[in-house]
Amino acid sequence: MKRVALDVMGGDLGMSASISGLNQYIKSGKCRDVAFDLFGSEREIVKRMRALPTIEGRLYSVYDTSDNEILASEKPAVTVKKGRGTSMFEAISHVANGNADAVVSSGNTGAFMVLSKLLLGTIENIDRPALVSMLPNGNGKTVMLDLGASTSCTPSRLVQFALMGQAVARVLLQLQSPRVGLLNIGTERSKGTEILEEAYGMLEQMSDIEFIGFVEGTGIMSGTVDVVVTDGFSGNISLKTMEGTMGYVTNFMKREFAASVVSKIGYILSKRVFDSLKRSIDPKINNGAPLVGLNKIAVKSHGNSDAVGFSNAISMAVNLVKSDFMGKLTRSLAGIRGEAQ
Amino acid sequence: MKRVALDVMGGDLGMSASISGLNQYIKSGKCRDVAFDLFGSEREIVKRMRALPTIEGRLYSVYDTSDNEILASEKPAVTVKKGRGTSMFEAISHVANGNADAVVSSGNTGAFMVLSKLLLGTIENIDRPALVSMLPNGNGKTVMLDLGASTSCTPSRLVQFALMGQAVARVLLQLQSPRVGLLNIGTERSKGTEILEEAYGMLEQMSDIEFIGFVEGTGIMSGTVDVVVTDGFSGNISLKTMEGTMGYVTNFMKREFAASVVSKIGYILSKRVFDSLKRSIDPKINNGAPLVGLNKIAVKSHGNSDAVGFSNAISMAVNLVKSDFMGKLTRSLAGIRGEAQ
Repeated sequence: MKRVALDVMGGDLGMSASISGLNQYIKSGKCRDVAFDLFGSEREIVKRMRALPTIEGRLYSVYDTSDNEILASEKPAVTVKKGRGTSMFEAISHVANGNADAVVSSGNTGAFMVLSKLLLGTIENIDRPALVSMLPNGNGKTVMLDLGASTSCTPSRLVQFALMGQAVARVLLQLQSPRVGLLNIGTERSKGTEILEEAYGMLEQMSDIEFIGFVEGTGIMSGTVDVVVTDGFSGNISLKTMEGTMGYVTNFMKREFAASVVSKIGYILSKRVFDSLKRSIDPKINNGAPLVGLNKIAVKSHGNSDAVGFSNAISMAVNLVKSDFMGKLTRSLAGIRGEAQ
Repeated sequence: MKRVALDVMGGDLGMSASISGLNQYIKSGKCRDVAFDLFGSEREIVKRMRALPTIEGRLYSVYDTSDNEILASEKPAVTVKKGRGTSMFEAISHVANGNADAVVSSGNTGAFMVLSKLLLGTIENIDRPALVSMLPNGNGKTVMLDLGASTSCTPSRLVQFALMGQAVARVLLQLQSPRVGLLNIGTERSKGTEILEEAYGMLEQMSDIEFIGFVEGTGIMSGTVDVVVTDGFSGNISLKTMEGTMGYVTNFMKREFAASVVSKIGYILSKRVFDSLKRSIDPKINNGAPLVGLNKIAVKSHGNSDAVGFSNAISMAVNLVKSDFMGKLTRSLAGIRGEAQ
């Protein structure tokens, strides 16, 4: 039986999101051959679990952790010092020690990145892991990385991200030669920073990658590329701008549809369209960003995710485990990484 | 009579967008007391103008420029060397020499920034100008800067942008104490780069600014701040991500609405709502980003703007001229800039 370690203390909503999310996931019936190892306050977990009789005891184990939790506002350096005893540290250690196949946490992103790197280690030739998201593009999905793990990047790290993104697109999108683009403020070769220019030169010379050059913010959701590569600062700004724009659209329509009887009727008749639009870009439904480049599977759940979001992050982790993501990724990187040296 | 200099050669569509845009603007009847100085190929301009009999001769003058145009892909350093003779250079010089009150161009952003800075000079205590956009936030507008003029920024330059953004919000949005936020990947003080941390410390200590701290990409269009300050790289990525997200929404709805008779009827009844949503965020309608921080008014029109877009960029320039933007901006900055030292 596969096992997934859950840090149930992390995130803005803490346990009320994670335990209910686990419950939802288990109730969905998708996890007959997966068990969960829960890291957090045992007393609290047991109390909440008792209130959710649908979760059978055989499906989970509880590991009590200290009250000394990693806070959302903490710097990674503080986290490492605090280390041992926190739910996040213990959940990751559990996977590092081979007791589970993947870890999921909604806690502090920087801390999760630093501890995962420290405890799980990175794949050969990869400096740092990258947070990966799959965004809708009208025709399918676009893989985007990094979304906040590395706020600044060297050219060679961007090249590593490009290779990891290519591998993720091969494994999760079943694309043999995904088109890879570097996010920039223009598509012309002369635009942007020196770091981007250098990364461009390196990627251009590699044979086993379909590098299409620079891509702008307008290209992320347009389907002109399959993989968008960027540093974690720009990636995070871009991803959250998308969320904000969708929030604007939703609020605008809500307000305007209420303004007349004709548009209210129009809304009722169009509801299917709006619901499917919302689903296609809902951060809760798309929750669960794999931290790729580590020796084990680690999935970051959004800090403000609710039960639905946490359940989807669990689902992402389980899918990665069951599809032998690590094996496929390593084989896909092995074929090309020699060139990135 | 006020005069606006137009570089009619710039942009992806070149003269077909700019001359038609000018024609649209003049036909709108808003410009009875403004004349235009057109910089470009005289032969071409005259030919096109003859085909547009609605433009009276008294409303414009033509200045013939060389064929040696600044290209979209050129580095600013090349631009400066090429310099004199190009339509962009001559249009800006015209304003610098006091022959017109503002300049508008759809040409290469980097070149426009470098030449404007060189020829028009910056306001006292301002290093570099910033490209400013006004974005809808549901309740009104949010001022965002920089959108691509300075790809990297020092902390003190970010502080200058904050002060300029505050001044723009005072002048264009009539807000006495606009709330100013720094764009970052988290709202916690510990998040982000060292440059942002330092800028935060500087802004926090200033008395005449309503600094509310860090704001994420989700906050740009939510109305939680009136001014979003960022470097030109992140600003450009963010703005273009917004455009891309809106493009995704529009295409998604177009496709889905066509999928059933019920939703087709829903679409017809909801058309007013969609049209007003599109207008609220249409880059053409919102076209015309002032380059703020210069001694004169310079407005950057989007590189791919069409006639409607160019007409709106002209409109922005005329409004800034007529509202004594320069005077108000200088006075607003004078009250506070002592502190930014």
